[in-house]
Amino acid sequence: VATTAPRDRARSIAPVVRDGACLRILDQTLLPGREAWQELRGARDTAAAIARLAVRGAPNIGIAAAHGAALEIAARPEAYKEGVAVLRAARPTAVNLAWAVDRVSAAAHGGGPDAALAEARAIQAQEDAASDALAAHGADILAGCRRILTHCNTGALATGGRGSALAVVQELAARGADVQVLVCETRPLLQGARLTVWELARLGLPHELLVDAAAAGLMRRGEVDAAVVGCDRVAANGDVANKVGTYTHALAARAAGIPFVVAGPTSSIDPALTDGDAVEIEERGADEVREAGGATLTLVGTPCRNPAFDVTPAQLVTALVTERGVAAPPDRASVGALLS
Amino acid sequence: VATTAPRDRARSIAPVVRDGACLRILDQTLLPGREAWQELRGARDTAAAIARLAVRGAPNIGIAAAHGAALEIAARPEAYKEGVAVLRAARPTAVNLAWAVDRVSAAAHGGGPDAALAEARAIQAQEDAASDALAAHGADILAGCRRILTHCNTGALATGGRGSALAVVQELAARGADVQVLVCETRPLLQGARLTVWELARLGLPHELLVDAAAAGLMRRGEVDAAVVGCDRVAANGDVANKVGTYTHALAARAAGIPFVVAGPTSSIDPALTDGDAVEIEERGADEVREAGGATLTLVGTPCRNPAFDVTPAQLVTALVTERGVAAPPDRASVGALLS
Repeated sequence: VATTAPRDRARSIAPVVRDGACLRILDQTLLPGREAWQELRGARDTAAAIARLAVRGAPNIGIAAAHGAALEIAARPEAYKEGVAVLRAARPTAVNLAWAVDRVSAAAHGGGPDAALAEARAIQAQEDAASDALAAHGADILAGCRRILTHCNTGALATGGRGSALAVVQELAARGADVQVLVCETRPLLQGARLTVWELARLGLPHELLVDAAAAGLMRRGEVDAAVVGCDRVAANGDVANKVGTYTHALAARAAGIPFVVAGPTSSIDPALTDGDAVEIEERGADEVREAGGATLTLVGTPCRNPAFDVTPAQLVTALVTERGVAAPPDRASVGALLS
Repeated sequence: VATTAPRDRARSIAPVVRDGACLRILDQTLLPGREAWQELRGARDTAAAIARLAVRGAPNIGIAAAHGAALEIAARPEAYKEGVAVLRAARPTAVNLAWAVDRVSAAAHGGGPDAALAEARAIQAQEDAASDALAAHGADILAGCRRILTHCNTGALATGGRGSALAVVQELAARGADVQVLVCETRPLLQGARLTVWELARLGLPHELLVDAAAAGLMRRGEVDAAVVGCDRVAANGDVANKVGTYTHALAARAAGIPFVVAGPTSSIDPALTDGDAVEIEERGADEVREAGGATLTLVGTPCRNPAFDVTPAQLVTALVTERGVAAPPDRASVGALLS
């Protein structure tokens, strides 16, 4: 295990910051064109920010919600319940949101407003620590790799600390690797082009943007040392559901004989999910495919397929990296061990 | 070999049409938003149309150039040489362009303007026949397939007749198959979204558009029966250089156990090219990646990788389909037999 160099805090990205009686969030809907901050003071404005996607990524939504609930409880210690309930329901499918709000409410129930504020800080510190632990495990596995390909956005804009997959890349750089990040644009919603490029530029890490379909050819030509991606959901057997395009990169990495690493918190592992075929793939609207950056790309009304995710079979994954350790290769036994 | 149903001529696409002393071309730079025709009357305006990409695709460039040269010779039988030389140099790397102009010039030398006009028609007829022959061979191989995935634009907008890969799809439909075409958008220049969608809409063939990275997941889920693509250059061993993204689809088709068919004229086969690793991959400008449909997608000045092509190893190709027959699987012997 290599030693971690001191991180350059001046260059870290912190999109959710508690500052006294206020929560400051970086409005991600305006990136990369504009860097604007919004000040939130309670549960209702935090709920609105989460609903309009100014804050995104399950861990970051949890962190923001925890602070929003705590600020609400501190401001209205006798009348916070309705506001906190609104916040808890801001995005119905975000598991971390309800979990974080419930933790803060329970703390308030036992210890009042001060305990709630402390609990919100504890949740954020826990997510930061998880990101650091995951990054260290991933960097151990990818020691010696320099040209790293990634997909979608998995940095500080999505999770606590430095992110998941992008935290691994940052940790490699912090340990002294001359990292060059190959960023897939991630059509249709372009999280790579919009968010990952912005993060890497802010962090001062060398990077190049490419269209998703160019990744395989570069791997085949020996121009990539490893691929590292995040995960939305991991099945008990190690199959990975993640942003559409992930499976393509896994096939190409295997054909090129380079590591394909999946990084994410253990909360992404769903032991009730037998394998990846059981994942229901969300099919999103056609306009996301017909358009890019506000421009129309095709004939008006063209019918589209738009699956948001795909499934990468565990056999193509070199290692599943979590804050609690590594499953390499991921299978029923190694994934189960991470949860035990 | 199945019998070909009569083609629905009313629905065919003819982007290069000789009409008396005039050549009418569909201006492809305006598709899919606008369908505008330009009338060309000689060598210089044909050269200008080719140079600004109003006509594209090597076979179509050859056809247009042949007619442009013949019209120039007919209009100025004593003073055509300078204009024809300008046309021959309109795009320096287009092999079909010089070849077509030289054939028409040689005909004029022997038989005057009438022979030149006849030779231009013969070149177009030859390209049309090649497309039909290729389509029949491809449809024989893909008999029974219904859900066909394709990439880039390989229809009448690119070649004579009905195209190459897209001609195979049209032939399947003409033979009665209930075809559903899955069109990959083909970033960065979006030839799938702009041109193939337009052709299929015009032809009345059911289709759906998808981002390139969604293709692999659909194949894995059993939603695609076969993939068929064109080729820019085929090596002597059967390795295929084609639009970036082709290799990705080949990997996914192999993993899904479905046919991956490459369609193109024998003129695409380069017997001097030992294998695909010898192909020099053109790296194009960064703005193509930073933008789509005129919209900027990322931070200004972001460095990019933009390989225009990739190489698919012959081992992943089920069949190479040409106007002279099929190499299945393509290897040094079967590809050599197509040229002998």
